[in-house]
Amino acid sequence: MTAALHLLLARAPEQQPIFWVTPEQVAEARARATVPLPPMEATVCPIDDPSFAAMMDKSFGMVGFRFPRETVGASKGALSLLQLTSAGVEHLLPFDWLPPHVALANASGVHAPKVEEWATMVFLILHTHMPHFATAQRRHQWSKAYSSTIEGRHAAIFGTGAIGAAIARGGKRLGLKVTGISRSAQPVDGFDSVITPAAAGATLAQADFVVLATPLTPQTKGMMDAAMFARLRKGAGFANFGRGGLVVQEALIEALASGHLDGAVLDVTTPEPLPPDSPLWDAPNLLISPHVSCDDPVTYIPRTLDIFMDNIHRRLSGLPLRNLVDPTRSY
Amino acid sequence: MTAALHLLLARAPEQQPIFWVTPEQVAEARARATVPLPPMEATVCPIDDPSFAAMMDKSFGMVGFRFPRETVGASKGALSLLQLTSAGVEHLLPFDWLPPHVALANASGVHAPKVEEWATMVFLILHTHMPHFATAQRRHQWSKAYSSTIEGRHAAIFGTGAIGAAIARGGKRLGLKVTGISRSAQPVDGFDSVITPAAAGATLAQADFVVLATPLTPQTKGMMDAAMFARLRKGAGFANFGRGGLVVQEALIEALASGHLDGAVLDVTTPEPLPPDSPLWDAPNLLISPHVSCDDPVTYIPRTLDIFMDNIHRRLSGLPLRNLVDPTRSY
Repeated sequence: MTAALHLLLARAPEQQPIFWVTPEQVAEARARATVPLPPMEATVCPIDDPSFAAMMDKSFGMVGFRFPRETVGASKGALSLLQLTSAGVEHLLPFDWLPPHVALANASGVHAPKVEEWATMVFLILHTHMPHFATAQRRHQWSKAYSSTIEGRHAAIFGTGAIGAAIARGGKRLGLKVTGISRSAQPVDGFDSVITPAAAGATLAQADFVVLATPLTPQTKGMMDAAMFARLRKGAGFANFGRGGLVVQEALIEALASGHLDGAVLDVTTPEPLPPDSPLWDAPNLLISPHVSCDDPVTYIPRTLDIFMDNIHRRLSGLPLRNLVDPTRSY
Repeated sequence: MTAALHLLLARAPEQQPIFWVTPEQVAEARARATVPLPPMEATVCPIDDPSFAAMMDKSFGMVGFRFPRETVGASKGALSLLQLTSAGVEHLLPFDWLPPHVALANASGVHAPKVEEWATMVFLILHTHMPHFATAQRRHQWSKAYSSTIEGRHAAIFGTGAIGAAIARGGKRLGLKVTGISRSAQPVDGFDSVITPAAAGATLAQADFVVLATPLTPQTKGMMDAAMFARLRKGAGFANFGRGGLVVQEALIEALASGHLDGAVLDVTTPEPLPPDSPLWDAPNLLISPHVSCDDPVTYIPRTLDIFMDNIHRRLSGLPLRNLVDPTRSY
């Protein structure tokens, strides 16, 4: 009889219970998998539990949002594969704690159907001036602003990864022209064209909507500062699907207050949760959602575990992994 | 030489300038028309101008949002056709001022592409809890609420006319199941089914979204009262694309405050503009737009004038008119 492969479901205290991974979900994912997999046994353990290190050392794989750095760094056991329940990895940087024999995969792509739909909504919200109406409502003002249909408008999206491509598809549903901006400028399905940041000047100066979907790295931190907002055309709409740290929030508030931007929609802020005394709450022509655009409580964990099951098979078979995080690129 | 057919462009003081009809737009509509039309001459006149009656008496047709009742009622001249720039006619009720020799056509259908897109946005806003997030933002609260993708949810729409059908198409874009509710229960393209109000109990008790797109008549006034909101399922989303008078606003506020409704989006209120002291502004989980969901400043007037041109041809040829308002049905 083959010994069951042990998996550890690492539970971080900051995670919402609806994103806790359960042994039942692992069993369901194993049953869904179309690749050969050994028998498995999954155990839940909080990352600050005294038994965590011992549980980890008998586990082949772990899934979770955050892991105890020193414990994982000291791993001498069977541990071979970490599966993140997030696409972003900035909360794990720098990767000096990750032993070379342990592979790390993220949940990139899991969010795509939800993000695509959210992006469709955000483009329409920006186009129809809903942020302006919400601000007028706070002030008890009936303040008309008109819009034609959205077809043919132009969206520029920073980032052409899984989230950026899903946003592009959300724009394409509405007939938008969609330009991606990435360092490589490699063509990606869903974008009409992809250009480098250095070549994006003319695009940014005339795009109707500018959207962020880039990872937060030392290079992208604060990329949307006053100078960048000044490069957008007057009346543009702005949205951030990436991380709050991409935006200099004071510069965004100023660009909204001056009327340079017509409106903005943020799903991410700095910090999170946004504290009650943040001036961002009262910025005009801004709608804030509390980092939920990517989170589909029905499909999120199952789709993450599908990647995990596939990667367990690949790891056991010596095949290249899906969604492998490169510790030297920070994403 | 044929004398030019005279048209009067009646300008009501409450109209936004972007919805003023110009002689240039009439000339463009005539040039677009594919039906035979005589030479035309169009003149702008405010409805409270002393020269209005004389101008009207030499005009074959008038286009506008509102007309001077007594002046039109005393019409003895060439006047044969009134073209409304609105779909709703409740501001002209009762029709005792309309001479039997003058036909009245509305702008029903002109709004369809804009409304379809707006409805797509509204369904997504309700589904993703954006009204809740906007309320939390007013209170400086980071308050998470999750949603899966929208496909397969169920929308019930009161009204299956041009606006209701456009809303249905907006829902169909997202994969919604869409039930129409109308007195006739006649099947209409875009709806999965159409039922009578009397048969709508089970539909209302389980629909995810309930939307109003009915005309305001003595029969529909105040139809959404406390008893009707109580018939919707707990957690439903509500939207009004019709007229503010369809809703008992105190009942809506109570249904939102109690949490019975998850959220609501109103494009119409009572009265309009909504006064600064209205309690509706501060109702929780409500987003208000200022009656703009139907108004496309680019296409609205041209599409209305296309109906007008077609009807001028039909009136001159003795053919049945498009968008004819039946004074006995109030819409």
